[in-house]
Amino acid sequence: MGLTPTTRGVYAIAPTPFDESGEVDHASIETLVEFYRRSGVDGITVLGLLGEVAKLTDQESREVVRRFVSTAGDLPVVVGVSAPGFRQMAGLSDDAMAAGAAGAMIAPAATLSTDEQITQYFANACSAVGASTPVVVQDFPLNSGVRISTTVLARIFSDNDNAVVLKHEDWPGLDKITALRNLIDSGGMPQVSILTGFGGAFLDCEMRRGASGAMTGYAFPELLVEVVGRGLAGEFDAMQEAFDAHLPYLRYEQQPGIGLAARKYVLHRRGAIASAAQRVPTVALSEQSRAEVDHLIARLMPSA
Amino acid sequence: MGLTPTTRGVYAIAPTPFDESGEVDHASIETLVEFYRRSGVDGITVLGLLGEVAKLTDQESREVVRRFVSTAGDLPVVVGVSAPGFRQMAGLSDDAMAAGAAGAMIAPAATLSTDEQITQYFANACSAVGASTPVVVQDFPLNSGVRISTTVLARIFSDNDNAVVLKHEDWPGLDKITALRNLIDSGGMPQVSILTGFGGAFLDCEMRRGASGAMTGYAFPELLVEVVGRGLAGEFDAMQEAFDAHLPYLRYEQQPGIGLAARKYVLHRRGAIASAAQRVPTVALSEQSRAEVDHLIARLMPSA
Amino acid sequence: MGLTPTTRGVYAIAPTPFDESGEVDHASIETLVEFYRRSGVDGITVLGLLGEVAKLTDQESREVVRRFVSTAGDLPVVVGVSAPGFRQMAGLSDDAMAAGAAGAMIAPAATLSTDEQITQYFANACSAVGASTPVVVQDFPLNSGVRISTTVLARIFSDNDNAVVLKHEDWPGLDKITALRNLIDSGGMPQVSILTGFGGAFLDCEMRRGASGAMTGYAFPELLVEVVGRGLAGEFDAMQEAFDAHLPYLRYEQQPGIGLAARKYVLHRRGAIASAAQRVPTVALSEQSRAEVDHLIARLMPSA
Amino acid sequence: MGLTPTTRGVYAIAPTPFDESGEVDHASIETLVEFYRRSGVDGITVLGLLGEVAKLTDQESREVVRRFVSTAGDLPVVVGVSAPGFRQMAGLSDDAMAAGAAGAMIAPAATLSTDEQITQYFANACSAVGASTPVVVQDFPLNSGVRISTTVLARIFSDNDNAVVLKHEDWPGLDKITALRNLIDSGGMPQVSILTGFGGAFLDCEMRRGASGAMTGYAFPELLVEVVGRGLAGEFDAMQEAFDAHLPYLRYEQQPGIGLAARKYVLHRRGAIASAAQRVPTVALSEQSRAEVDHLIARLMPSA
Repeated sequence: MGLTPTTRGVYAIAPTPFDESGEVDHASIETLVEFYRRSGVDGITVLGLLGEVAKLTDQESREVVRRFVSTAGDLPVVVGVSAPGFRQMAGLSDDAMAAGAAGAMIAPAATLSTDEQITQYFANACSAVGASTPVVVQDFPLNSGVRISTTVLARIFSDNDNAVVLKHEDWPGLDKITALRNLIDSGGMPQVSILTGFGGAFLDCEMRRGASGAMTGYAFPELLVEVVGRGLAGEFDAMQEAFDAHLPYLRYEQQPGIGLAARKYVLHRRGAIASAAQRVPTVALSEQSRAEVDHLIARLMPSA
Repeated sequence: MGLTPTTRGVYAIAPTPFDESGEVDHASIETLVEFYRRSGVDGITVLGLLGEVAKLTDQESREVVRRFVSTAGDLPVVVGVSAPGFRQMAGLSDDAMAAGAAGAMIAPAATLSTDEQITQYFANACSAVGASTPVVVQDFPLNSGVRISTTVLARIFSDNDNAVVLKHEDWPGLDKITALRNLIDSGGMPQVSILTGFGGAFLDCEMRRGASGAMTGYAFPELLVEVVGRGLAGEFDAMQEAFDAHLPYLRYEQQPGIGLAARKYVLHRRGAIASAAQRVPTVALSEQSRAEVDHLIARLMPSA
Repeated sequence: MGLTPTTRGVYAIAPTPFDESGEVDHASIETLVEFYRRSGVDGITVLGLLGEVAKLTDQESREVVRRFVSTAGDLPVVVGVSAPGFRQMAGLSDDAMAAGAAGAMIAPAATLSTDEQITQYFANACSAVGASTPVVVQDFPLNSGVRISTTVLARIFSDNDNAVVLKHEDWPGLDKITALRNLIDSGGMPQVSILTGFGGAFLDCEMRRGASGAMTGYAFPELLVEVVGRGLAGEFDAMQEAFDAHLPYLRYEQQPGIGLAARKYVLHRRGAIASAAQRVPTVALSEQSRAEVDHLIARLMPSA
Repeated sequence: MGLTPTTRGVYAIAPTPFDESGEVDHASIETLVEFYRRSGVDGITVLGLLGEVAKLTDQESREVVRRFVSTAGDLPVVVGVSAPGFRQMAGLSDDAMAAGAAGAMIAPAATLSTDEQITQYFANACSAVGASTPVVVQDFPLNSGVRISTTVLARIFSDNDNAVVLKHEDWPGLDKITALRNLIDSGGMPQVSILTGFGGAFLDCEMRRGASGAMTGYAFPELLVEVVGRGLAGEFDAMQEAFDAHLPYLRYEQQPGIGLAARKYVLHRRGAIASAAQRVPTVALSEQSRAEVDHLIARLMPSA
């Protein structure tokens, strides 16, 4: 059930549910997992960068992981384990894998810049979590401040056998998918699963470029499932039609800060979580923004 | 014909046309202006941040401005005059206004951070270009690295009589429009024209929030004209429909770097400029990207 | 024993001692505290930005604090409690104060930029740690990326009664001390203790400008004690002479990354900690750098 | 007289002199060159990053270069030609070399990050200025935001025959000098001159590490001449003594922004330029700062 270089499909990035008092809402983890399962996703990713993971204590993080994994059952759960020190990273990863997680996702430290620094960092990180832990390499420069070239990605995946998935969210990043696919096809790097993020904002193009699927947190995961499914099947016209209908709201959710507030609001409206609450400090959804979201999603959930 | 606090409509941000050898293509300035005129815009902005202005010599910048202004005739031309020194800023602005420009656009220096620094900078800049020069304050944090609060904007527009237009491109930035409109309505700051940018990516929401129009460079300015026109008329449903049809490609053009390449490619395909060439160093449009653009715009120009 | 607006003297920023296997070395906490006590400092600050605090688990952080506080006895211990969420911040602060700490040090979150955001952040943070917890406001833009104006500092210290100390490490920052002193003298803001950091690189000038003392981690705290003591006594010539003799090495320790490695190396050589080990990932001290340090400190410890 | 891989000694980075009205002060260029000549430097660098070059028009830049070159006579003059476009870069470089300059200095564009981007940029830049123009590669990450690894530097100097000097100002950067020297000695890269900058703040250590000299703008260039001379002669103790005496003020001048104001103030006090004026916007030297500078340099110019 662990991630492999041939992993395909949709991994929904789950927010961490809180109740109004700011406590982790474990009951909502159950409803959220059920929501994702019904939407048809192939897996769930928890403790992602946008999952308010930095606001959890170490203990809470582990409890959240265990609850997601135990609830998800046969649905694979990937765990974000990025940390300033490799010791913490390994500690969380070991705990998650022991609980039954499918892999560990690692973003580069913000202090990295040269190719050698980045390559060395992932070598150390992949070693720290252990050879039997499948690793997702997160490439999200707008957030991390670290730009990873195609050459460096090829080296990371060649050097570390347990690095099997790329969470691709460079912007612009479409040519990077093509370059990686060409490298893989020509034997320049091993097979690797390319799951795209960035809120799904370019998922249509990404599937045409050869992405293996999506790993992102859009509040309508069934749309991701449809787009990725049709994309993998080569049904590009139907894929584009489905995608385009969602783009006006999908774009809205992709705004930094307020995007997470909108996403939690919609997940709450859809019954997936009991409260849209975030832990402070946070970006609130204004009354006007809520109305905007309601308007933009009205067409996407006509029966609501 | 100069900009005023009640300016409304669409100001197309024009790229600088070059020929294949890298020379400024003055003939294409003429066809480009004609293209904009036919699309129904209310004005043109030249030497914007994305107009490759940094790659022009001082002399070339002035010649580009004069050619645009003389060609545009009664169509107002706004000129980007941002510069590290106020002396250069004033020099270019004076030259542009003498040639008949409608106003000067100024972005904050990247070194600014505190409220006082930003406020003082715009006071000095508004003074440098002269009291009779209408000023567009450019608020584009993703590009400038400078975040300007609503309070500071209110102070800038209150303190400087010639500051009359806000080029709004904060991200997220919708609540900022609402906050500014509330301040204006309650007398907390003077009337000001709010023209939104950011590639038009949120123009639908911006018009509902009270924007005065758009100032951006999308390669289908007629779409901006329709969206702004319907938005100002309160025809929001028709506005949304027009906007949504363009969003898949509009989003594509909004990518950093490659977006300008795509935009010039489309303007060239549409006959507005003789060549899509940029000055080096540049981001090229790959074969796959060109195909992607062709696909995304096919529905937007069915007769092509 | 808690921090107050009239706190003066030297607060040594303590590194976190680790053994060669990467475990927190609690025995070295004892020798380190003894070392600081002998050097004549007025207090100790733990879990500072350079204290590898980000590489500690929540549990380890609390244990480190308790060990320092219990060992320090009547020597005040200030605790760095900066955290992405106010809940964690309050949790660590509450635990530290209950153990007997003298105050909590808080740096602004990297996402802040406008005056209002910064002011609001410190209002929330000062409230989160509780009115009875003395707060040190850390102003270190080179590290945090957040530039806090004198006006904003005045507001923070005026609005929050428990904000009593400024850890000043802006660069350049000398005029800021003068501006704050002028504001305090003219009643524009309440009395506040200004303890300077930045490795002590400008401590001579800072004392002339009216600093209350130093809060930094230089490996020769007795020099800080002498400089601050003479500075507070107005013995500026003797102060300068003492300072100048240390500047060649002091400058060396102030280098980012490698500075901490040098500091731990010297503290180890001086018998203050059992090992210079850091937790991975880290910046190592090359053979040449060690020789350089040995050379630069030779004159400072002639008997060694 | 052009720069070569065996260039050694001190290249003084000259500020651009302005008169009180903000005009370039060509008469002061003459006195400044004479000042540098008397101080014993081996060359002068103009239009450096701190030379307010961004506030000059293209025309002024060329006039400044020509005046420096014609005044300097047999003293080599290096010209900063960094520019957003290669066309401008080549234009200024061609003009400078035709006037008799000794080389062109190029900093990386702020948009670069990966090894390939940096390598490609310098290949294009070295080509743009022409094979017969000696190039100084400027490595100043704190200012440019671009971190260049030793590996990439080796590639740049190996790939481009006209790249002959490294202006080294990484921080920390001492191990980089050692690494480059080792690479050169082992045949891993060609011979290259390493002239260090960063205000001279680590010049003592840099000379011991194998630097070829200094290229920086300290207001007492005779100190740089003595330190580099003694360092190249292996008289390290005398070198250190000379250096240490200047460090308290040298450190002061190395502050961002205000450092240039201090430097111009001292150069003015020493009679090298007629006015300390900068072009707006600028960082002013407060009354307290002036007093501080006076105090710190009193010991360095006892007869003053």
